[in-house]
Order: sequence, then C-alpha cells, then structure tokens
Amino acid sequence: MVAYLRCLEQEKKKDVRIISSKDITSLLSIPPAQFRKDLSFFGEFGKRGVGYNVDTLIDTLKELLGLDKKIKAIVIGAGRLGTALVQYPGFLEINVEIMGVFDNDISKIGGSIKGIRVYSIKDVKKFIINKKISIALLCVPAGAAPLAANTLVEGGIKGILNFAPVALILPDNINIANVDMASEIGSIIYRMKENV
Amino acid sequence: MVAYLRCLEQEKKKDVRIISSKDITSLLSIPPAQFRKDLSFFGEFGKRGVGYNVDTLIDTLKELLGLDKKIKAIVIGAGRLGTALVQYPGFLEINVEIMGVFDNDISKIGGSIKGIRVYSIKDVKKFIINKKISIALLCVPAGAAPLAANTLVEGGIKGILNFAPVALILPDNINIANVDMASEIGSIIYRMKENV
Repeated sequence: MVAYLRCLEQEKKKDVRIISSKDITSLLSIPPAQFRKDLSFFGEFGKRGVGYNVDTLIDTLKELLGLDKKIKAIVIGAGRLGTALVQYPGFLEINVEIMGVFDNDISKIGGSIKGIRVYSIKDVKKFIINKKISIALLCVPAGAAPLAANTLVEGGIKGILNFAPVALILPDNINIANVDMASEIGSIIYRMKENV
Repeated sequence: MVAYLRCLEQEKKKDVRIISSKDITSLLSIPPAQFRKDLSFFGEFGKRGVGYNVDTLIDTLKELLGLDKKIKAIVIGAGRLGTALVQYPGFLEINVEIMGVFDNDISKIGGSIKGIRVYSIKDVKKFIINKKISIALLCVPAGAAPLAANTLVEGGIKGILNFAPVALILPDNINIANVDMASEIGSIIYRMKENV
C-alpha cells in the first residue's frame, strides 16, 4: 500500500490532480485486479470513470495506513547497515523519524550519524519509554539479535523491522517484519534455475 | 527456503547429525504444516519418525535451490547501502560472491570497498558479459534505477535485487525481487494501528 502512496506523491509533484486507476496500475506495473482488490479493502474512494482526486486519495490512504501521524523510530546497531538506514530517504516520506542509534561499541557511542546521535545500548529501554518510540530497526549480527530484541520488548517497543538473518521469537503483540536479503537473492537464484 | 538452509548449517556447526521436523520448525518458529508443505514441494527427504540426516538435507536443499554452484553478483551504487551490502556476510553463506561495485562518481571509481573494486558504471555491460555475472543488487536512488536496470538487462543480467523504491518494468525473463524497507515499516505501522 505504501507503493500506492509513493506513486501518488510522485504524480502530485508533477501537478497531477486527477488520476485513473489505469494510470496508477500502469505506473506501478501491477494488474488492475490487484489494485481494485487492495482499494476495496479500504472502502470506496472514487467514482468509476471519473478517476480519483490525488490529494484526497493521498490523505485518505495516509490516515488509513496510520501514516498521518509522525512515527518515532530508533536504529539498533551503528554498523554499515544501520548507518545506511539512518540516511534512507524513504522513511521520512512515510513520516517515520529516526530519533537515535544504539550500539555497544564505546568508540561509536557519543558520536553522531548524519546529525542523529549514537547512544549506548544500555540506555535503550529508558529512551524508548521517555521518547515514546514505537519502532526499532534491528541491524545487529544474527547472534546478537535475539537478546537485543528482548531488551527492546522490555522497553515497550511495539514494532521491529528485523534485518538480522534469524527468526525472532517474541510476544504476539509485537509486530515484526523481516528484511532477509539473502533469502530474496535465494529466491531469484531459484527462479533463474527454473527458467534455464 | 534459505531460512531452512541457514538453520541446518547452524545445527551442523553444533555437531547435530540428525534433526526432526519438529526441531526445525521450533528453531525457525514456523507452523509444522508450513514446513511439511515446503518440503513436499521438493519431494521426499526423510522417514517419518526417524528424522533427517543434516548433511544430506543441506546438500539436497542447496542443489534444489541452485545454491550448490557459486553465483557471481555485482552491486550498483557505491553509496551507504551499496557499501553495507558488499560487507553483508549472509551472501557468502549462500554461495553468492560480490565481484565488483559500480558507480558514476569519479571520486569513488578506482577505489575499493572491503577489497572489492569500484568500477565506472560505463563498464558494467562489458563486465557482466566477461565475468558471467548473473545477479545485480541495485542500490541507486529511485530516479536513477530504471535507466540503470535497462543497462543491466542490455548487458545480459538474469536477476536483479532492487532496493530502489520504484517498480521496475523489465522483460519477463528477468527475475526481480524488491527489498522495500519503507513498505515493510508501513506494514508494521498499519498492524500496530489495528492492534490499538
């Protein structure tokens, strides 16, 4: 659904005011049936044949997706990946703000990455509570991920985007999404093999 | 499926020789039905009640997934994300080797990242052909991604792991997987909203 929002924001920048479902599906290269299904999930948005008002559709989608309010996030792990994520422009676009980076490396603690301060992992629970952090981006090695995730949950985190190649076993009320780059490449390799 | 392989490799390191499906599903925190479904897709592996020979299962999975042979990959974009990916240990685990990084920034070309050389994007087509590269990791900004992807396809690339937040429209024989971090966070936020 974020992809729809991104597409609409891009069209808005080009001063497009009204957009048809056909325009959206061809911009995103998805089947029209998929779009109708996704949109019907959220109710009625526009009149058939007239197209959608871009501003209205953006606002409604943002509200429905919970992206109308700022979401505060932290990055766990100030390595290469964590550093890359602090600078990732796609997060600000969806109203997600990185409030701090946490690490256990004394040489990194107290420094900053693109203006975002690096704190000791020992202070993460206090930070989550005081700053009302909802989401953590977990960018530590696989071996360190389960312990770090437990600490985050103890601090009251509600969502974790896990980049560590390990399955996290956490309470049901914690929302986890995994970004597993090796698995994605594995799936490409498998499909390449089939296509040979 | 790569997750199974990773789990089995970890158990092998602990000198586990025989593993039950129950062990595997609890290690990965997935429903047993999911595991049976995934495995049945590939045929019969073990006898019910006896468990699986870890070495045999690893070898068979690797062969089936196309991970028994080395896969040569390149990274497009020597920014923070591209740099992080060059160093990502998960790729070597699945036999994927990063052969080079490509950029259009003259200050980066000729340098190296963790021993991997940075080349001019102008040379990428020649490199793909000469070095028999199968997969490219596309880590350029959204605006530059479609053009870069077309160049890769012209060079004969077979698979693209796309990190740019944009839908790539490419010939059907190109295998694309998208890693869309903002969408993943968006899905967490949406589920958090539902749980309130």
